[in-house]
Amino acid sequence: MTGNSVVSPLYTDLYQLTMAQAYYKNGMQNKQAGFDYFFRKIPFKGGFVVFAGLDELLQHIHNLRFSTDDLLYLKQSGFAQEFLDYLSDFQFTGTITAMREGDIVFPFEPIARVEGNLIETQLIETLLLNLLNFQSLIATKASRIRYAAGNKNILSDFGLRRAQAFGANQASRAAIIGGFDNTSNVFAAKQYNIPHAGTMAHSFIESFGDEETAFRAYAEAFPNDSVFLVDTYNTLYSGIPNAVKVAKEMEKQGNKLKGIRLDSGDLAYLSKKAREILDYDGLHDVKIVVSNQLDEYVVKSLLEQKAPIDVFGVGTSMITGMPDAALDGVYKLAYINEKPVLKISENLQKTTLPGKKKVLRYFDRDGLFYADAIVLANESDPERMINPFEKHKSLYLKDFQCEELHYTAMENGKIVSPSENPSQLNKRLKTRLNLLPVEHQRFDYPHIYKVGISEKLMNLRDDLLSKHL
Amino acid sequence: MTGNSVVSPLYTDLYQLTMAQAYYKNGMQNKQAGFDYFFRKIPFKGGFVVFAGLDELLQHIHNLRFSTDDLLYLKQSGFAQEFLDYLSDFQFTGTITAMREGDIVFPFEPIARVEGNLIETQLIETLLLNLLNFQSLIATKASRIRYAAGNKNILSDFGLRRAQAFGANQASRAAIIGGFDNTSNVFAAKQYNIPHAGTMAHSFIESFGDEETAFRAYAEAFPNDSVFLVDTYNTLYSGIPNAVKVAKEMEKQGNKLKGIRLDSGDLAYLSKKAREILDYDGLHDVKIVVSNQLDEYVVKSLLEQKAPIDVFGVGTSMITGMPDAALDGVYKLAYINEKPVLKISENLQKTTLPGKKKVLRYFDRDGLFYADAIVLANESDPERMINPFEKHKSLYLKDFQCEELHYTAMENGKIVSPSENPSQLNKRLKTRLNLLPVEHQRFDYPHIYKVGISEKLMNLRDDLLSKHL
Repeated sequence: MTGNSVVSPLYTDLYQLTMAQAYYKNGMQNKQAGFDYFFRKIPFKGGFVVFAGLDELLQHIHNLRFSTDDLLYLKQSGFAQEFLDYLSDFQFTGTITAMREGDIVFPFEPIARVEGNLIETQLIETLLLNLLNFQSLIATKASRIRYAAGNKNILSDFGLRRAQAFGANQASRAAIIGGFDNTSNVFAAKQYNIPHAGTMAHSFIESFGDEETAFRAYAEAFPNDSVFLVDTYNTLYSGIPNAVKVAKEMEKQGNKLKGIRLDSGDLAYLSKKAREILDYDGLHDVKIVVSNQLDEYVVKSLLEQKAPIDVFGVGTSMITGMPDAALDGVYKLAYINEKPVLKISENLQKTTLPGKKKVLRYFDRDGLFYADAIVLANESDPERMINPFEKHKSLYLKDFQCEELHYTAMENGKIVSPSENPSQLNKRLKTRLNLLPVEHQRFDYPHIYKVGISEKLMNLRDDLLSKHL
Repeated sequence: MTGNSVVSPLYTDLYQLTMAQAYYKNGMQNKQAGFDYFFRKIPFKGGFVVFAGLDELLQHIHNLRFSTDDLLYLKQSGFAQEFLDYLSDFQFTGTITAMREGDIVFPFEPIARVEGNLIETQLIETLLLNLLNFQSLIATKASRIRYAAGNKNILSDFGLRRAQAFGANQASRAAIIGGFDNTSNVFAAKQYNIPHAGTMAHSFIESFGDEETAFRAYAEAFPNDSVFLVDTYNTLYSGIPNAVKVAKEMEKQGNKLKGIRLDSGDLAYLSKKAREILDYDGLHDVKIVVSNQLDEYVVKSLLEQKAPIDVFGVGTSMITGMPDAALDGVYKLAYINEKPVLKISENLQKTTLPGKKKVLRYFDRDGLFYADAIVLANESDPERMINPFEKHKSLYLKDFQCEELHYTAMENGKIVSPSENPSQLNKRLKTRLNLLPVEHQRFDYPHIYKVGISEKLMNLRDDLLSKHL
């Protein structure tokens, strides 16, 4: 099936399996590791990222087993029998704490922490990155389009045909989290219990030969759920007049045309003209749906021009997260057998933050998000936080309230928090976005949200760094 | 499973199902339709597209059935019982002709033609677009990276962690078609029978605490298949010296280090230094693998700088087709019950080409690709072809040899051509690229390949256009 309940543990990078075998052969399989998931760069030149993908990831991790077929393939690929015997009993028994799916997250924060033995923590890395990076990317993109559209308009995901193959399903899920109302992808709608929506294609009109007959035929099949596509031949002189004619017939039968769709031409101009004609004929309730290469900037521009649009059908740019197409999230070892470790880079931004950490979110006096501090898990709330890369910059936190952002999502392999569907996750996002000052939400040069580290964490990193110099 | 054998027919846009019900209710389910798949814009500012995804699409179409669960969901969604009864027996019985997977294709050409009844041709549209658009995008991207890398270097797909969720599998398949040698995605390797490859992660080094011990442990597990990652702490002063030390030990045991991997820093500088050190120590056979934000431009630049790199591991930009992320392929009705139809747009480029067509590829006197002509299926080879959008431009074809590009891939629902694996498809691509003048292959402002239409096709389009004016 396309992207549903069972994922093979072979859906991973080969090196996860070879490293696991090397750990096994060296008797290191019971060493306890702690990995952090975080990203470095906000996509779309935006001010925040919407965290998404966690619930689905947990389900997949929970069900991760090597089938006989998987093991046979690995055997043929040269893996050692004793290691394959180990894998045949494999299941993930680790613990995952994370920020809440649907929360707003920022660069360098450990969004999720995975603890377990070296092999299991390594074997889930690629799946975790694959699902969290992509869904967070799309939820973020969708939230931008929602921001542009305001709360009144409906946003439909029309992206399936331009999606990156079966990634479409995850994208449709993430779109809802980010603020879309429904999807054209029926499989995703069923799988994730989200509303589906659709209109009609040009081919429908063409196969009847004329618009009037086609509209009438569709209206007979869906008397109260028809959206007529009006641009097959000529929007203003053929499509809309024919739609009006059939809509009036529908009214006589006690039915209502739901909407018309514009899929080409100048959508600002045509939507205004369409509204005029519809209103002139008393069809005030007929909605105007538009599609065709929309993104957050086009939506914003259309509404600034007061285009009377009710529904935006967004495809390619949302479903693929154009123009960025990937979130650069990584999964880095932070400690092993409780001993903090780090990866060094000439670029301090690429040097990892060692040790077991937590994230505290501070609120300003208006109750809005003020700053996030990454601190060691066992330290008390710090008096100030320091810019992780520019030590002379610090922020006093003493007088501010804060909350801890991580919760335990999985404990010893068991999912310990109730599953939440995409619409519930969108509710969380809305609540959180209401707490994020608008300056972080604007499209052009958003104000940079402050993320700092505690002095103790900074000292730990510097100590470890100096040992390797 | 992640993107393998069975795809639900619900993996489609809702409107395909609602239109199908409207056709059914109007007794139009047996009307015969012909749809063309084509795209308008070449991605990456390139000169051609590599057609990919067909073999996998045919398998999925062949197996497309509505399950009881699917039908129940549609019932709950308000579909009519008589239509659901029709769907319960549904299987695709149409005919698909297409260009060969792995061939080079150009804008506006009908790359595939789907004939069948209105319902079945409509129900496969979204799946077709989803699979062909994406795989063609990625095969094209991969072929560009192969072009930059030349034929000597190895290209590895390291993209799984940054892929758009389960689209990763299709991307790994398409990468091989485009010219990659192997993938890190073990599931895709198994599913498509393609080679897998991998190195090691920084976490492996860190979990041992020092590089020397980590390298030695890995070498013990994989005595002749080890690639050491050398940039965890300091590439030149720690990573490479430790790799050399362990490589010399391996030699004494009769084994050989396969390679080292550089994942950060200036890859041109570091690869030259690494090669010097390795050669100085007699380790001439140890390969240099590089990764870190590679794309065709970086690969080209590294090789122009004579960086002695053997293997390029390419991730994000290839697996997502950055910066374009989608091919704009569409599926348009061309005829119904043998009667040609078209969709009109103010923009002539968006007006479709009506009727049943074929594509002829002409060869110049050197036997290289010269031009492609889109002609009606039943016409004899035309004397000249005309630019589809600028009628004053034409090209004489009389003295040139040509071949017809479509073959029958599926006939009355049966796959009638043998399946080809990704490496075979790459062989076809290589043969075809050898016939494509290099001017069409360069990255900067490639020469535009000529695609024209026959006079008869032009007249047909113009006649139909005039009827709607």
